[in-house]
Amino acid sequence: MAKEYEVIIIGGGPAGLSAGIYTSRARLSSLLIERGVVGGQIADAELVENYPGFAQGISGTELGQLMQQQAARYGLETITAEAIGFELKGEKKVVKTTKGDFSARAVIIASGSERSKLGVPREEELTGKGVSYCATCDGPFFKEKPVAVVGGGDVAITEALHLVKFASKVILIHRRDRLRATRILEERARAEPKIEFLWNSVVEKIEGEDVVKRLSLRQVKTGEKSTLDVAGAFIAVGFKPNTDYLKGVLPLDDAGYIITNEKMETKVAGIFAAGDVRLNSAQQAITAAGDGATAAIFAQKLLSE
Amino acid sequence: MAKEYEVIIIGGGPAGLSAGIYTSRARLSSLLIERGVVGGQIADAELVENYPGFAQGISGTELGQLMQQQAARYGLETITAEAIGFELKGEKKVVKTTKGDFSARAVIIASGSERSKLGVPREEELTGKGVSYCATCDGPFFKEKPVAVVGGGDVAITEALHLVKFASKVILIHRRDRLRATRILEERARAEPKIEFLWNSVVEKIEGEDVVKRLSLRQVKTGEKSTLDVAGAFIAVGFKPNTDYLKGVLPLDDAGYIITNEKMETKVAGIFAAGDVRLNSAQQAITAAGDGATAAIFAQKLLSE
Repeated sequence: MAKEYEVIIIGGGPAGLSAGIYTSRARLSSLLIERGVVGGQIADAELVENYPGFAQGISGTELGQLMQQQAARYGLETITAEAIGFELKGEKKVVKTTKGDFSARAVIIASGSERSKLGVPREEELTGKGVSYCATCDGPFFKEKPVAVVGGGDVAITEALHLVKFASKVILIHRRDRLRATRILEERARAEPKIEFLWNSVVEKIEGEDVVKRLSLRQVKTGEKSTLDVAGAFIAVGFKPNTDYLKGVLPLDDAGYIITNEKMETKVAGIFAAGDVRLNSAQQAITAAGDGATAAIFAQKLLSE
Repeated sequence: MAKEYEVIIIGGGPAGLSAGIYTSRARLSSLLIERGVVGGQIADAELVENYPGFAQGISGTELGQLMQQQAARYGLETITAEAIGFELKGEKKVVKTTKGDFSARAVIIASGSERSKLGVPREEELTGKGVSYCATCDGPFFKEKPVAVVGGGDVAITEALHLVKFASKVILIHRRDRLRATRILEERARAEPKIEFLWNSVVEKIEGEDVVKRLSLRQVKTGEKSTLDVAGAFIAVGFKPNTDYLKGVLPLDDAGYIITNEKMETKVAGIFAAGDVRLNSAQQAITAAGDGATAAIFAQKLLSE
């Protein structure tokens, strides 16, 4: 038998924790399921400067911990487990996890997304130390310094165009000889004197002791090796929403994102989505926290009907 | 001639300030227009317990000031003026204010809404000291104490049903002999032993030196006067969005709220709405801040196209 709650929240990043603060403060019996460390992607950010209310910035780890303490204060129950399946039984939703089944009438999905990794040596160790997956978050740290963007799609170009406001130079490294990005973005990037293109090139290794110093590159057509001195490397080779366990239950877009309206309602009554896991999320800690609270409030309304 | 910006933000509550943090941090020339004190409705709250990140709570005034400092750090320009008109000139939007005209391609409307006031003596002085316009915000401060809710619509009943989780007793005071609320909510309220109804009654005065002590009531049919000892009075007689200056420019719902999608886009390209001014806002500081950041990010995308 699945253990029952009024609300189940999947994911312990800003969206899930914010939802948990709201549902537990409203005295709804709530369970938050998180597979790893509570805090989500935000825990990767050394300094979060754009979460409104922290005028001097705050470390991502600390922000996550503060939200966790706040939720705990209102009695939010948390379990370390991975959601691996999802079933609808009439009004009831059953979440299957690595630690057993749990059910609730309202489920808030806040399982996030991940920037796809390059998968090269030193990438993980230097994340937050020059390696970044978010120009909006980290751009201002690279004032007057040269940075690289790896990728050739809309996200990569958007990141590069954002970075020219800060960096001395932006080198866009793409494995093919032309971009995947939409033309208007490409035109803007080509017209921007600070952006240089390195075609047919892949990053083989990121170098630097404490912070990023340079990239080791390989030209894919000639095999020629080279290095590029940069202070930052923005990886923009795609995202992956964490929704594998929802396939067949909830309509997802082609990339796997959950479609919601402005109340964070999905197509299935009682299932809400919040944060990076949903289509058109602005992918910021503050927007995720806002989504989580919105989902919690409309979940509460549903349960009181 | 209207002074030009890339983005104009109308309203300096959490939605507007959050939008301003994002647009100015993205180096878009931005103007925030606020008619009163920056901070918005949140400045009325003595203690905000549910803004994720402030585990021990924070005063509304302080939260507003922190957001303002943060926006100022990135160079957000702010003007004290009231928006009194709005015009579309092709792609350009002209905001007419008491201090002149300003124009931009992107406008973020965050002018908020107001809980309608009862308009009785001592209501204003005791706001935040027992008089509240938000049970979600302030309910937990009234544990095991008697409170009154004034109103007879969905909001009043929802507030009363939320308050039974905390208060020792909830007296619902309504000026008519039956509710305007939807039946299911009424049924739930009637089934709730902690809720009592006072029909055909109006509040004439709120009493108390430093905090609310009692209400002076009048029975509207008999004219009989009485008093009611309570620690809290939740006023739920409606909301009013601040959108008078937008009539004829933007489609509003019957009550004057702005309709948006989940990107905070309105029906007019380049006009975004965030926070309490939009339909289906969850009316919380955190959801407003999230909305503001979302609007800013999609405004930025629009401007870079």
